[in-house]
Amino acid sequence: MNIAGLIVEYNPFHNGHAYHFTEAKKLAQADAVIAVMSGDFLQRGEPAIVSKWARTEMALQVGVDLVLELPVAYAVQPAEWFAYGAVALLEATGVTTHLCFGSEAGALDVLQPLAERLADESAELQAQVAEELATGASYPAAYAAAAARVCAAEGCGGLDAAAARAMLEQPNNSLGLHYMIALRRLGSGITPLTLRRLAADYRDAAPRDAAIASATAVRNLLAHSGLTAAVPYLPASTADIMAREFAAGRGPITWESFAQPLFHRLLLCSPEELAEHHEMTEGLEHRIKKLLPKLKEPTVEHLLQQLKTKRYTHTKLQRMLFHVLLQSPSGTMFRTALSGGPGYLRVLGFSSTGRELLKRMKKTASLPIVTRAAELNHPHLSLDIQASGIYANGMANRSTSELMRDYRQPPIQL
Amino acid sequence: MNIAGLIVEYNPFHNGHAYHFTEAKKLAQADAVIAVMSGDFLQRGEPAIVSKWARTEMALQVGVDLVLELPVAYAVQPAEWFAYGAVALLEATGVTTHLCFGSEAGALDVLQPLAERLADESAELQAQVAEELATGASYPAAYAAAAARVCAAEGCGGLDAAAARAMLEQPNNSLGLHYMIALRRLGSGITPLTLRRLAADYRDAAPRDAAIASATAVRNLLAHSGLTAAVPYLPASTADIMAREFAAGRGPITWESFAQPLFHRLLLCSPEELAEHHEMTEGLEHRIKKLLPKLKEPTVEHLLQQLKTKRYTHTKLQRMLFHVLLQSPSGTMFRTALSGGPGYLRVLGFSSTGRELLKRMKKTASLPIVTRAAELNHPHLSLDIQASGIYANGMANRSTSELMRDYRQPPIQL
Repeated sequence: MNIAGLIVEYNPFHNGHAYHFTEAKKLAQADAVIAVMSGDFLQRGEPAIVSKWARTEMALQVGVDLVLELPVAYAVQPAEWFAYGAVALLEATGVTTHLCFGSEAGALDVLQPLAERLADESAELQAQVAEELATGASYPAAYAAAAARVCAAEGCGGLDAAAARAMLEQPNNSLGLHYMIALRRLGSGITPLTLRRLAADYRDAAPRDAAIASATAVRNLLAHSGLTAAVPYLPASTADIMAREFAAGRGPITWESFAQPLFHRLLLCSPEELAEHHEMTEGLEHRIKKLLPKLKEPTVEHLLQQLKTKRYTHTKLQRMLFHVLLQSPSGTMFRTALSGGPGYLRVLGFSSTGRELLKRMKKTASLPIVTRAAELNHPHLSLDIQASGIYANGMANRSTSELMRDYRQPPIQL
Repeated sequence: MNIAGLIVEYNPFHNGHAYHFTEAKKLAQADAVIAVMSGDFLQRGEPAIVSKWARTEMALQVGVDLVLELPVAYAVQPAEWFAYGAVALLEATGVTTHLCFGSEAGALDVLQPLAERLADESAELQAQVAEELATGASYPAAYAAAAARVCAAEGCGGLDAAAARAMLEQPNNSLGLHYMIALRRLGSGITPLTLRRLAADYRDAAPRDAAIASATAVRNLLAHSGLTAAVPYLPASTADIMAREFAAGRGPITWESFAQPLFHRLLLCSPEELAEHHEMTEGLEHRIKKLLPKLKEPTVEHLLQQLKTKRYTHTKLQRMLFHVLLQSPSGTMFRTALSGGPGYLRVLGFSSTGRELLKRMKKTASLPIVTRAAELNHPHLSLDIQASGIYANGMANRSTSELMRDYRQPPIQL
């Protein structure tokens, strides 16, 4: 029995995701699909447009069989830790046979040897990354350059340094590489498969195709032109779920939904207190305090615009602000604390096939399967619950049931 | 030259305040009036309906000559520290000759001997207060009972314990008593004067008189029936200022304006972290965490309703929530830290007569006179600035200029 694993955010689920889902299932000849999905906050440090529960429904509606939550401790992290957490969850199911991901390269022939080389060379690689960072490069750029250099030195994959670097600077190649490094580090038997990303680049601001638009483009349409404008790019089930969530005042959620608590904390904390947050590095605390009085408006968007430099990517800065919002002390989510891997398999939803999978997993899984948050006491799970509470507290229609939903909500069943 | 001092909140300034102002000026035969006014957060732990700047304008418009800010470290405190801070500021001006306050008693013949007796008996009094608290009484009730008992034992003022207690349970008598105790402790030469409170009790929810309503009644009208309904009880200048503030999205401010950041913090903090806030005493942190999932709605009003018991007055609980909002660690505002008295005279506004007073005060004042927040580095002033930033962050129309107003705003001049 082939079980395909996908690593997703579905923010929101759109036609491009539906295409990827169908093709991945075909490619893996899969009988069932497991999606590891970020919860309410995403890798780039942003809140999701609607809650993890609504996005779980979207995934189940189009045929995903089992949705597992990527703990926020891994979900809002640089690519390597995001990838490590997600792949470790798939491995821990004990049933996943294939990992399918989209990439700009569309083939494993170059990524595979790179992954093999890099998985074993962490000390040398880290030294090269540090060297690149010292030139003022952002972390992703430094990593791509260092990885390319390490590889080209030994001629792996037949690429020279410039070609390897150009390839790794494409975000889905980079994520894919980290998935494969994680598989190798975990000694996993899961087979990686890749699909060339279709039509829309994730960074496209506007749709390029009649039915396929990037999630960014879909969110822009939602923000500026409303749900109707986005409908052509969404499965009908997604559109219905979004309409319901918006009507109930549970979305759309953006960073501005958290402007009041974020600025509250930025106003109250001294630079020294700000510096105690995860990812608040290299004097960013002083830059923030100096910028606050100069912002044209006290919005998160203006703050991010003013903070951005070559060295600090928008993504890095958003993640840092997320850690201020969540009051994550540096240390809590620190990388060494993550290397032990996730501690549980949190089930957000399942189909009837998913129910059968869960039965099998009772025997095969190497981590506890959690269907209610109250069942397990784990620091990462407490963090997930806090993050979801904070998220619900940003809804236009605040309600106790939403603030506490993580404690009460059983998995969504289709 | 007679200079009358008033201790006020003006939330908002209404006809009852105007009457008190006129009568006080007459009674003191005063050439000028100084008001010590709470800033954006008030003694009962509530935010003011409009900012301290708008309320300063109201005060100047009806004839107050100089408005000084009572630092938030004293303003949001039980009666004894509120009174001590305010009286110490008047004393520090070096020009105040009279202190006029309203009281239910309307005469000093009973309050004066009580004050003399209590000012010197803090050890015995505190022991009696502790004994009353142990029976489950609230602090104000325990203080009234203990003070009455201490006094009656020595027959001061000719009242028996029951009569003294009944008198002290009236809130303005209690405040007045604390003003006089403070005068005595400070060795002040300021003469106290009292006026009987007219018509409206501060706790009245609805107006009792054609032109005089309590501030509570005025705020209820504003909240439920709009500004027009409140106009009969307000000087025209107050009504104009309120209309302008509301139109600009700077009011009305209520506790619900801070529901998101307050619940944010309540969701994130463990009971142990909550217990580190000022006034979070005797296991209240556990009660809050247990109540959160049971609230009908996540509003501050529902939370306060559910938290209230005989022991914990609404006022005590509101102040505690304010300290959570301001992240005041226990210690910061602790009573012993306040006994040194205020550290500055912060000028919020002045009339032309007030300008002359300020000139005199350059020679007479025993504390630095601050007209711009950036002039002085003092922990209480930092707290005032933080409190005002947090307050502005709760406005419907959030703006950088309001968040930073305390740094930039010179005193209001009329």
